[in-house]
Amino acid sequence: MIETQQNKNENRNQNRQNHRSKRRNHPPKHKDKLKVIPIGGLGEIGKNMTVFEYKDEMIIVDCGLKFPDDEMYGIDIVLPDFSYIVENADKLKGLFITHGHEDHIGGIVYLVKKLGITVPIYATKFTMGLIDKKLVEHRLTTKVDRQIVKAGDRVQKGSFEVEFIRVNHSIADSVALYIKTPAATVLHTGDFKIDYHPIDGEIMDLQRIAKLGSQGIDLLMADSTNVEEAGFTPSESSVGATFYNLFRGCKNRIIITTFASNVHRVQQIIDAAASYKRKVIINGRSMENMVEVASDLGYLKIPKNILIDIKDMKSYKDSELVIITTGSQGEPMAALGRMAHGEHRFLNIKKEDTVIISASPVPGNEKMVSEVINKLVDLGSEVVYKKFADIHVSGHARQEELKLVQTLVKPKFFLPVHGEARMLVHHAALAEGVGTDKRNIFIAENGSIVEVDHRSCKITGKVQAEPVLVDGLGVGDIGNIVLNDRKRLSEDGLFIVVVTMHKGKAISGPDIISRGFVYVRESEELINTARDEVKKALLACEEKGVVDWSSIKNEIRESLFRYLYSQTNRKPMILPILMEV
Amino acid sequence: MIETQQNKNENRNQNRQNHRSKRRNHPPKHKDKLKVIPIGGLGEIGKNMTVFEYKDEMIIVDCGLKFPDDEMYGIDIVLPDFSYIVENADKLKGLFITHGHEDHIGGIVYLVKKLGITVPIYATKFTMGLIDKKLVEHRLTTKVDRQIVKAGDRVQKGSFEVEFIRVNHSIADSVALYIKTPAATVLHTGDFKIDYHPIDGEIMDLQRIAKLGSQGIDLLMADSTNVEEAGFTPSESSVGATFYNLFRGCKNRIIITTFASNVHRVQQIIDAAASYKRKVIINGRSMENMVEVASDLGYLKIPKNILIDIKDMKSYKDSELVIITTGSQGEPMAALGRMAHGEHRFLNIKKEDTVIISASPVPGNEKMVSEVINKLVDLGSEVVYKKFADIHVSGHARQEELKLVQTLVKPKFFLPVHGEARMLVHHAALAEGVGTDKRNIFIAENGSIVEVDHRSCKITGKVQAEPVLVDGLGVGDIGNIVLNDRKRLSEDGLFIVVVTMHKGKAISGPDIISRGFVYVRESEELINTARDEVKKALLACEEKGVVDWSSIKNEIRESLFRYLYSQTNRKPMILPILMEV
Repeated sequence: MIETQQNKNENRNQNRQNHRSKRRNHPPKHKDKLKVIPIGGLGEIGKNMTVFEYKDEMIIVDCGLKFPDDEMYGIDIVLPDFSYIVENADKLKGLFITHGHEDHIGGIVYLVKKLGITVPIYATKFTMGLIDKKLVEHRLTTKVDRQIVKAGDRVQKGSFEVEFIRVNHSIADSVALYIKTPAATVLHTGDFKIDYHPIDGEIMDLQRIAKLGSQGIDLLMADSTNVEEAGFTPSESSVGATFYNLFRGCKNRIIITTFASNVHRVQQIIDAAASYKRKVIINGRSMENMVEVASDLGYLKIPKNILIDIKDMKSYKDSELVIITTGSQGEPMAALGRMAHGEHRFLNIKKEDTVIISASPVPGNEKMVSEVINKLVDLGSEVVYKKFADIHVSGHARQEELKLVQTLVKPKFFLPVHGEARMLVHHAALAEGVGTDKRNIFIAENGSIVEVDHRSCKITGKVQAEPVLVDGLGVGDIGNIVLNDRKRLSEDGLFIVVVTMHKGKAISGPDIISRGFVYVRESEELINTARDEVKKALLACEEKGVVDWSSIKNEIRESLFRYLYSQTNRKPMILPILMEV
Repeated sequence: MIETQQNKNENRNQNRQNHRSKRRNHPPKHKDKLKVIPIGGLGEIGKNMTVFEYKDEMIIVDCGLKFPDDEMYGIDIVLPDFSYIVENADKLKGLFITHGHEDHIGGIVYLVKKLGITVPIYATKFTMGLIDKKLVEHRLTTKVDRQIVKAGDRVQKGSFEVEFIRVNHSIADSVALYIKTPAATVLHTGDFKIDYHPIDGEIMDLQRIAKLGSQGIDLLMADSTNVEEAGFTPSESSVGATFYNLFRGCKNRIIITTFASNVHRVQQIIDAAASYKRKVIINGRSMENMVEVASDLGYLKIPKNILIDIKDMKSYKDSELVIITTGSQGEPMAALGRMAHGEHRFLNIKKEDTVIISASPVPGNEKMVSEVINKLVDLGSEVVYKKFADIHVSGHARQEELKLVQTLVKPKFFLPVHGEARMLVHHAALAEGVGTDKRNIFIAENGSIVEVDHRSCKITGKVQAEPVLVDGLGVGDIGNIVLNDRKRLSEDGLFIVVVTMHKGKAISGPDIISRGFVYVRESEELINTARDEVKKALLACEEKGVVDWSSIKNEIRESLFRYLYSQTNRKPMILPILMEV
């Protein structure tokens, strides 16, 4: 089309109208706000998941799992509550993943199963490689629409524009997300640190964040994990320097454990091994899987002929070997745990071993890690752990990094995420300290509905977001009753009394079975007297004319409770069973 | 007698003979060596106890308890193994206690009960005060011969001379022991640190230790708890300075928790409260007990009229109150835990509260402490904990202090004690680093018999020294079978099947009862099908002519296991019960 004056005028009018209508539409009405709903990761470390909802469209950021607390007897994993997402499944435009740690991707297969629809998943290559492993294992590859992205990409899904921004973290290919909607713009950092000497050379894209910040970011959501730590988290490459120091002049066989997903750590171990002409053995299932995925996708550069099989270990001298293995958290069933307990199939710890634990215990694992170190020391090996060498750095930003991000972003509103209650509060104080208005900082909880636009932000309600417990094949079928029973059984065991009844009279028994209560062989007298107590209770019932079974059972339970407690100070679960013939 | 020349000559001869015979007797023959047998506290933190045996005489140093590991389901406490002491009870000359912490005195009442003889106990005044509380509670006051000593005292019991030497520690009135026998001299540090500004003004008696060292100490036994920490543990008084800083200008109600036994810490809180004109409430059973004992015995100086009852709290402004309370380890049932969970009888946490946690989590308690902090933050209070303020110092010597003691003592032989395996090894390396010959350092374990005299030291054997588990009234009656059952029950619960039999045929049932396995109300189908599976198994037995009960039970167990595992991936404990009528 040739642009004429008339056309120009029309265009100008059009533009003006557009401009006006834009201005008229701003700020959007209440119903047009962006809803941000953290489903998991607030008030806890783990199971990170956030819903972003605008009008009738919804995207999800991350879908992680969490490992159970000590009090969750027998529970395998804990998931976020998918109820709100299931209710709004028709709105779902896609699942955007920041990185490949379990607390960000571990819930995906459960969500996909639950939704029963094809879910578009956006993730960087390495993250997608790890998700793929899970999809294959759960036979769900056909249930998702895999979209591999890279840092710098922008994806438009309905009203949502999502930009992937490079960050550093303890796993390769991590990104933050810039989410743009007509109502508001959001920067979600995901898990991050700032590493000026990252192993892959890709420093967190601070320029882009600064640019977006200067254009105006309405809501910042940032990782609170390390907000209690002063200073700046050291670079991953600082650990490599320690490895070189430890390898130099070492004649021992070297066994190193770290988090399998920390591919850059593994790279540095392999590089150090190559420098000192050592062969490398990869040991432990998750380490083997991770090395396979990472080298297939090009995230791990392995020199030719450096890897050997653990079965060929004997062909090499101690000084020619490095074993990279699992078990950095002291897990008794992981490879290092089995070595420490003398139960590893191919490797016995000996005096000429140097064991390097290149990790920190995750809170709650401190005692397990100590236990493994003690066992390894008992076996005569030299153990190098964090207290005595700089062999681990965190993947999360400390205070100075968090302040830098606040300063680059200068958000209107701030929502600290990924952290326990005290961390969120400290993160809020940190933001206030660098100039964010206290009234614009929000401490939310799982399920909070945070409504935000260019001008305002508030918490307007709450959706269901309780932890969902997984035990075996059961997802969410275990509640407090079952857990309380397990707790009671774990403390004082079980005392079963069986009586066969006929026409209201006991005709056989009482038979007694106990487990986890006393050592039965040495407690004959106790058991015999308990049997007499039951007989007395039955007789009393008969004499009093008590015939309904629940009353009889109560009598038995109470008389046994009194007797057993008086003799042992223990309170086993007492189960009276009456059988009618 | 008038001393004549003849007499003089005789005396001289006598002296010479004595002298000769002394020399002839040195070194003593093998049977005259001093046996040092650590019964607890090696390869672990807790239940400290050491036997010293010379010829037919024996003394014991400390008799502590330990708190159970996570895997010790339902166990209340763990004791040292008293078998060797019971076997040699006739040799026992006395029990010598270094200080009043539970891991040094908590086993005494159990030992006294077990021995059934009157045991002489030597302890300083405050330590004895704490022992007395326990003796009264267990009605054992008549079973012991209490001997109160003070630092500087020497006690001769048979061939043993024991000297009490002032040390600093996180409880008042702590001592090290210098033990002199004809065979060898030993310095046992007990738990200690070096505090140049102790609250009671009594600095560890380094002069005396140096003097004994210069006279020659054969064996040094020293506390390894903090050997992994570089530097010098700060003075207890440094914490007081922090309290003043926190109190100054504070308008909030102040709630402080610390270890009840740390009387000097409590003193500093009271002093700070007095300075800022605040009243003090003592809350929590163990805190109330400890303050009572400590002030009765003069170890705590409480200004007049400063203590008030918690029920009178409402008569004071927030800025006029300090509450000293229990629960520094995050124990949910202790006072602070109940406050955090909104279950305290007299105190509700509010925004205008400053809660100070003047303690570090004991290893294993990290998560419980975090949980309490998070709850308190959730309730809006300001929580001050170690990460953000210098409000706790350890009671144990760090590396520089340990080196100083090595240097003052210059022992012939060294036995690191009170520590997990890795700590003992690090302590050995530390001693070697300051000049002790590696061959003269011994890493022993609980039960090791260390034989020492002026010239030699070696580990010659082992006595029984397994941990003894206490559950309720039962001491040592819980073994691996019971613990394994509790563990299994805690993981997947329990599934009971009861069938009444008559002449080899099932005539009633199968009845099914499950606990801690599935939520029964939502699992009717599962339970019904399980019942069918049992019926099938019974039928199969009948058809195959299987009549013996153990085979029938096995069939039931196996078919149920298969079915339940296939449906749930869980492995409950399956208990088939057959009743004959």
